[in-house]
Amino acid sequence: MSEVKDITSRDVDFAKWYTDVVKKAGLVDYSSVKGSMIICPYGYAIWEEMQKQLDQKFKETGHENVQMPMFIPESLLNVEKEHVEGFAPEVAWVTYGGSEKLDERLCVRPTSEVLFCDYYKKIIKSYRDLPKLYNQWCTIVRWEKTTRPFLRSREILWQEGHTMHATEEEAINEALKMLHIYEDFQRNVLAIPVLVGKKTEKEKFAGAVASYSLEAMMYDGVALQNGTSHYFGQGFAKAFGIQYLDQDNKLKTPYQTSWGVTTRMIGALIMVHGDDRGLVLPPRIAPTKVVVIPIGDDEKVREATKKIASQLKDADITYLIDESNKTPGFKFAEAEVKGYPIRIEIGKRDLENNEITLVRRDILEKMKYPLENAVKEIPTLLENMQTDMYEKALTRRNSMIYEANTWEEFSDIAKNKPGFIKANWCGDEACENKVKDEFSMKSRCLIDDEEIDTPCVVCGKKAQYRLYFGKQY
Amino acid sequence: MSEVKDITSRDVDFAKWYTDVVKKAGLVDYSSVKGSMIICPYGYAIWEEMQKQLDQKFKETGHENVQMPMFIPESLLNVEKEHVEGFAPEVAWVTYGGSEKLDERLCVRPTSEVLFCDYYKKIIKSYRDLPKLYNQWCTIVRWEKTTRPFLRSREILWQEGHTMHATEEEAINEALKMLHIYEDFQRNVLAIPVLVGKKTEKEKFAGAVASYSLEAMMYDGVALQNGTSHYFGQGFAKAFGIQYLDQDNKLKTPYQTSWGVTTRMIGALIMVHGDDRGLVLPPRIAPTKVVVIPIGDDEKVREATKKIASQLKDADITYLIDESNKTPGFKFAEAEVKGYPIRIEIGKRDLENNEITLVRRDILEKMKYPLENAVKEIPTLLENMQTDMYEKALTRRNSMIYEANTWEEFSDIAKNKPGFIKANWCGDEACENKVKDEFSMKSRCLIDDEEIDTPCVVCGKKAQYRLYFGKQY
Repeated sequence: MSEVKDITSRDVDFAKWYTDVVKKAGLVDYSSVKGSMIICPYGYAIWEEMQKQLDQKFKETGHENVQMPMFIPESLLNVEKEHVEGFAPEVAWVTYGGSEKLDERLCVRPTSEVLFCDYYKKIIKSYRDLPKLYNQWCTIVRWEKTTRPFLRSREILWQEGHTMHATEEEAINEALKMLHIYEDFQRNVLAIPVLVGKKTEKEKFAGAVASYSLEAMMYDGVALQNGTSHYFGQGFAKAFGIQYLDQDNKLKTPYQTSWGVTTRMIGALIMVHGDDRGLVLPPRIAPTKVVVIPIGDDEKVREATKKIASQLKDADITYLIDESNKTPGFKFAEAEVKGYPIRIEIGKRDLENNEITLVRRDILEKMKYPLENAVKEIPTLLENMQTDMYEKALTRRNSMIYEANTWEEFSDIAKNKPGFIKANWCGDEACENKVKDEFSMKSRCLIDDEEIDTPCVVCGKKAQYRLYFGKQY
Repeated sequence: MSEVKDITSRDVDFAKWYTDVVKKAGLVDYSSVKGSMIICPYGYAIWEEMQKQLDQKFKETGHENVQMPMFIPESLLNVEKEHVEGFAPEVAWVTYGGSEKLDERLCVRPTSEVLFCDYYKKIIKSYRDLPKLYNQWCTIVRWEKTTRPFLRSREILWQEGHTMHATEEEAINEALKMLHIYEDFQRNVLAIPVLVGKKTEKEKFAGAVASYSLEAMMYDGVALQNGTSHYFGQGFAKAFGIQYLDQDNKLKTPYQTSWGVTTRMIGALIMVHGDDRGLVLPPRIAPTKVVVIPIGDDEKVREATKKIASQLKDADITYLIDESNKTPGFKFAEAEVKGYPIRIEIGKRDLENNEITLVRRDILEKMKYPLENAVKEIPTLLENMQTDMYEKALTRRNSMIYEANTWEEFSDIAKNKPGFIKANWCGDEACENKVKDEFSMKSRCLIDDEEIDTPCVVCGKKAQYRLYFGKQY
């Protein structure tokens, strides 16, 4: 149990707790390549689950996967002005191929808008070619100075959808549709409550007309932007000269979107659900739903273990059996740090009563079930755990959203209470900057379904928007 | 049909035929990034099928997926001498991060042996940590001067397995096990006959003790190395100082393997099975098994199309319906260039007899079936097509393997007959080089189950090996 005991308490040092958990749960390891991490088998298995479930949704909604080049020639990155200004400072430049200096340097893609546009210019000629609904699963590179596993890394695994449409309405609908696919996935699969809304001008993506984001609150009250969906209008299309011949025989410029989520979602899982014993995985995303721990070297225990394993297999519930020589206490602790949703303990004493013990990872309550029926109960236990985890996260999140109507109230909350602050805003970037400079809080996203009946929380002038402020990862 | 008619005949210009097919079947497109290709939706869907099926086999045999960094610091690449000599001339070098020059340049991984070794050094401490059976799906970069879609590209999508074992025997068995998983997949899923064997010293991987390869013969008689599996011995492990404490309390060095296949396999599919009408996909790898083509704007045709679609869905057979406004002839040609295994034609005249027409892509024979029963026949048709395609490829391949006992015979075949030549060899690299210099043929792989009863085909000295020679892609 020594390994697990080494986890710092999350209320003592949240940052240390986080790195302890990612490391001890076997999600990530450090490499000797500065700024790059190794995604270990268990961490990668979680990512594969995410990929599988999201990819299915993308395909069901008509999207197709493609693979674009990994390199962007400097001249191509330079085509859209805002975009290059946003990304050029943080890209990795390839300048040599073998021993030859390249005529033009290439950056490793930090995102692939320009590559998709360059391709779309070639293949979109007629209204019949629209919409184009492409997605790509790949690794991108951003040359970050300080890095943290899953949250900020030089190499990021993600998916990026890039679509082209004949009308503005269709493109906006696409951006919102994908936003809601993300939202649904995060709520119902990751059990993470998310605030969903438009970003302010200051916070939007370099080159977008409108950016929508999913904002999750971590245990420490800090925001994690857990996915974005952008409406680009015709900005990139015009910069790249993408035009199609419409049914009315006129040349028109299409409307564009892009949307993406990354391995950051694993960071969110940890920081929303984890506890001092380690990871707690929502059943619908857990690669292994059940860990079976036989206790003691006993014939009856071995038989019961075999029986349970065969029932789990028949029920199509992913499981593993910990048959190592470690002590039961060590095995329990290890199962807890890994966050397997259900632990089954099979011990000699329980078996005398024809029982086994099941433990739900989130509440750690021991429940005894008859050997014969235990596996049948598991699907219900998993569903209950899934629902309870979401409710728990939602209650906590809601309890950490405050409302401020004056600068005094705002300052008081910002100084004393971790979490988000709901407030009204005049729309002036200077006010956004003041919040950032004084409290390191940024606007998270706009709220569009609440009344705006008090003035700007910063300057006191007439408010035009209502939004969430929060510190961010 | 114009698009499809533009395919060059494969007997007129095989190279041109190949690029016509990859382009017109929608597998690949050219990008404005020199040397990099775009994998289009249909090409990527084939790769996803390959990934899915192989990944399942890897997992069934105990392998776990991980993700290593994409960059290798120059000093790390330099640790194993043979390896760096093999790869340094063809890597892409990152020298700047944003506007800052890097202290040490980083190459984009051309393969990840050194990254895995660097990590294994850290995590392998005890005999209990062995074996380590890791695999990675990723993109690698090799700075090729001349490129061809799927065959030779600057960016390659692949998987690379890297394993560590306590004993030499176990490591060799692993290398052979994975070789046979590839062989089985290529024979039974891709319907590609492969010669499987050890590479000569000259042709083996930089840093390996033994390399095994899968050698497929393309329609033009040229070899495509379609996957490799390497036994590394302790070379890398010693260079990296990887040691573990064994049960006898002694420090020991583990034994290593690596193995990989790439999107090259798509190139092999095209060049083994394709014909002058385009791609022909073996049913077991085809992402879409059936294309349904309704002919004419008719109520009965629409009804029958709906019925067939619903039956295909119920039978879990992937399909698509071509309801575009194009002519039937155009649709047939398009279905043929895409290589969908089965085409269903639903026409008014057939329906008067309560029949529809099915066409197998490989033999293009039209078969009429009663509307009610047609879908039931499809699984058998697909299986027969799969078997026939393998048999056809095998027969052709075998008819193009020749045997040479003297240099005169060898020269005559090499000059006049495309294909492989089976011959005996003394083991001297000079003889291998002579074959390469005179005929651009390399040794493909050793044959270990045939008698060696004639001298070296090149120098006439006593032969030690029997092997295949062939030109290669």
